[in-house]
Amino acid sequence: MSNALHLILRRFARPLAASVAVMCALSAYGDSAPDVSELMQGFPPAADHKVSRSNFMLPPNNRWAFQHIRELQPTREIWRGNGPVVHLPEKFQALGTFTATVREGRKVSLDMFLEESHTDGFVVLHDGAVVYERYLNGQQRHTQHQMFSATKSYVGTLVLLLAHEGRIDLSQPMARYLPELESSAFCDATVQQVLHMTTGVKYTEIYDDPESDIWKYGHVFRVWGEPEPGYKGALNIYDYLPTLPKQGTHGEGFHYVTPNTDVLGWLIRRITGKSVDTNISERFMQPLGAERDAYIWLDDEGNEMAGGGLNVTARDAARFGAMIVNGGSFNGQQIIPRVVAERILAAGDSATFRRFYDDPWYLKVGHSYKDQWWVFDNPHKAVSAIGIHGQFIYMDPVAKLVVVKQSSSPDAEGGANESNDTDGPMIYQALAEHLLKNSR
Amino acid sequence: MSNALHLILRRFARPLAASVAVMCALSAYGDSAPDVSELMQGFPPAADHKVSRSNFMLPPNNRWAFQHIRELQPTREIWRGNGPVVHLPEKFQALGTFTATVREGRKVSLDMFLEESHTDGFVVLHDGAVVYERYLNGQQRHTQHQMFSATKSYVGTLVLLLAHEGRIDLSQPMARYLPELESSAFCDATVQQVLHMTTGVKYTEIYDDPESDIWKYGHVFRVWGEPEPGYKGALNIYDYLPTLPKQGTHGEGFHYVTPNTDVLGWLIRRITGKSVDTNISERFMQPLGAERDAYIWLDDEGNEMAGGGLNVTARDAARFGAMIVNGGSFNGQQIIPRVVAERILAAGDSATFRRFYDDPWYLKVGHSYKDQWWVFDNPHKAVSAIGIHGQFIYMDPVAKLVVVKQSSSPDAEGGANESNDTDGPMIYQALAEHLLKNSR
Repeated sequence: MSNALHLILRRFARPLAASVAVMCALSAYGDSAPDVSELMQGFPPAADHKVSRSNFMLPPNNRWAFQHIRELQPTREIWRGNGPVVHLPEKFQALGTFTATVREGRKVSLDMFLEESHTDGFVVLHDGAVVYERYLNGQQRHTQHQMFSATKSYVGTLVLLLAHEGRIDLSQPMARYLPELESSAFCDATVQQVLHMTTGVKYTEIYDDPESDIWKYGHVFRVWGEPEPGYKGALNIYDYLPTLPKQGTHGEGFHYVTPNTDVLGWLIRRITGKSVDTNISERFMQPLGAERDAYIWLDDEGNEMAGGGLNVTARDAARFGAMIVNGGSFNGQQIIPRVVAERILAAGDSATFRRFYDDPWYLKVGHSYKDQWWVFDNPHKAVSAIGIHGQFIYMDPVAKLVVVKQSSSPDAEGGANESNDTDGPMIYQALAEHLLKNSR
Repeated sequence: MSNALHLILRRFARPLAASVAVMCALSAYGDSAPDVSELMQGFPPAADHKVSRSNFMLPPNNRWAFQHIRELQPTREIWRGNGPVVHLPEKFQALGTFTATVREGRKVSLDMFLEESHTDGFVVLHDGAVVYERYLNGQQRHTQHQMFSATKSYVGTLVLLLAHEGRIDLSQPMARYLPELESSAFCDATVQQVLHMTTGVKYTEIYDDPESDIWKYGHVFRVWGEPEPGYKGALNIYDYLPTLPKQGTHGEGFHYVTPNTDVLGWLIRRITGKSVDTNISERFMQPLGAERDAYIWLDDEGNEMAGGGLNVTARDAARFGAMIVNGGSFNGQQIIPRVVAERILAAGDSATFRRFYDDPWYLKVGHSYKDQWWVFDNPHKAVSAIGIHGQFIYMDPVAKLVVVKQSSSPDAEGGANESNDTDGPMIYQALAEHLLKNSR
């Protein structure tokens, strides 16, 4: 499966039949697929090399678009502050030829993997130092790259911080904080259930039905450009979230529904009086001495896409991961409490995670999902932010390894993106063991 | 007159009857005008305090919008580079109580003037040092503010640089460089005529006629949101510019037509192979050691609004002015050749300037327009970038004074904005004399 529509919910692969419509959309390119390096080149670009607000999610346009979201959508900056850049120590190693075993026993070098998984930005930190770094497909070190659902892990971390500070009670129903949601599925879901994505929400993803929920969420953020004239659905996130009705039982099992994170975003705004992006600036970007401003994708009324709108440089995402893997401390400062960092780095409940999913990925690669973070079922139980089309902030708590990968796979998940979602953690686990052994 | 529609052409006040339609649009607010400080406050903001892509140019929404253009439109960053910030020397003086005489013999203090002229950002440099600085209406030192037609002076300076380097011949007809324009008014206009805005272009501004040119240019950049369904006009700048036919004689007189600058933008792209914003980054922002990235407003196909899309901090705009008033040199480095800076600081031809205009402003306040810069008819013949609603990079070559003013006047020009356009240069001239006297 491969399509923008997957923005909505990662890995909730039922109904699989829906992928047919997705493939039809892609086949429009057929053999005349434009050369990626020519996209948006020239003044004006050739008609078949133009990337626009209505076609940017489709491959190969997404190869250009994921480094250029602000040229297509309204965005808000995430200020790095006025302070000095905290430079990452650099201890580069020639890891490009490091070879690991991936699916079906195939051996692949790290550089080959980066090529075949449509990488744009890639940074590896070990013990807080940059040991490997590459930029491909025109990305530069200062390029902010679309992170999709990796955004959720920033949001989850903010909620954990507010809970630690006593400003949110995770056991309370969401309607206590957001009475606007009282007629929705989220009314009696606890904050913790929303964080874990175990809410019972009626949420359809019928890709060839423009009335389905998946299309409605996308329309809020103009993922496919302007909706058809006469479209009656919600066009901002506040109108949209209260429309989602309950189905099933909260807390029963993991069900990946992106609007859960947008509910958390609303909660953060309500509690702090500041947007999610301002919180990310003040809590993370500024104290981490980020190199660059980041930015976030907005709906047309100025509301940030908490579920998937972050755009950040690879190095600044690596700073975030390095801080967590180091127990919340960075450059000698405690950025988040150690207990919050330790909670993020712990594995969750695998039975809850697998209850509704029978996809092999869930049974063999993934382990759990908690507090808006994924856990891999590999020897080091690595914890990761993950976004569609190959975005990762992968943290190995045993090896103190952080891998940031920013990609523009033609597939959102599955298909070509299995390289990111399945081969990736296999390589990173092997790399962690290699670095651990060599540093002893 | 006061309206977003003035984006199109500054001060080309005929037909004046058009202002009636403009005033009707404004009166929709009547006595129930929302409190500016409440705009876009809360999660969600109240319905009557929402600023959107379709209403942001209307007062009072513009008071919020001009500091938040990227939250409403697609934009592209103008990178400050990786180098260190070149800090501006600071020699602050208590100039807030400095008093000058403005229209009708009224005395006003500098701070009173800033309040009544809807100021957001204000920086005064004398001999390269900041002597006064204020931020109002929520603006902060790091806020990039919409500059409207002050953008044009950056574009004109780029063209002068390319001409100085022999890459553009100002005497050549535009079609030599841009054959796409051969059926348009610009075909046989020389580059110099386009720079001076003395092209003969058929260009109407009938504000209550959605078929008029003024609306068509605005639609390219979604100045009023999405056009009505079925709109058949151009929706990107490359489709739009070739549609403008010739009327009159090139070189005869000044005629302020914003698309002239978009033609220059296209020329810069064609010659350099880079967007206007990339040129601004490489030629100005990076060598000037800017404090912050700037950004530029785009049409929906990624093309920058050369005629009015720059958003930049007050201090970084002041760096640009300080460099020019200092003969092209800044922080000990020659950023642009002295001869180009001297050309910018020289007055133009007043007779050409006044040929088509009988507005008192043209006869008493303005002196000339050349190379995309305005010249005032005050004792020091100050040169200025000017944008609607009160944007200025005012350079006094005698006193080595630079004033950057960023505003959100309810009126584009005239009306309340006479405070900016007429009182402003009166105050700045008096301030220049005051600073000159005190520094002797």
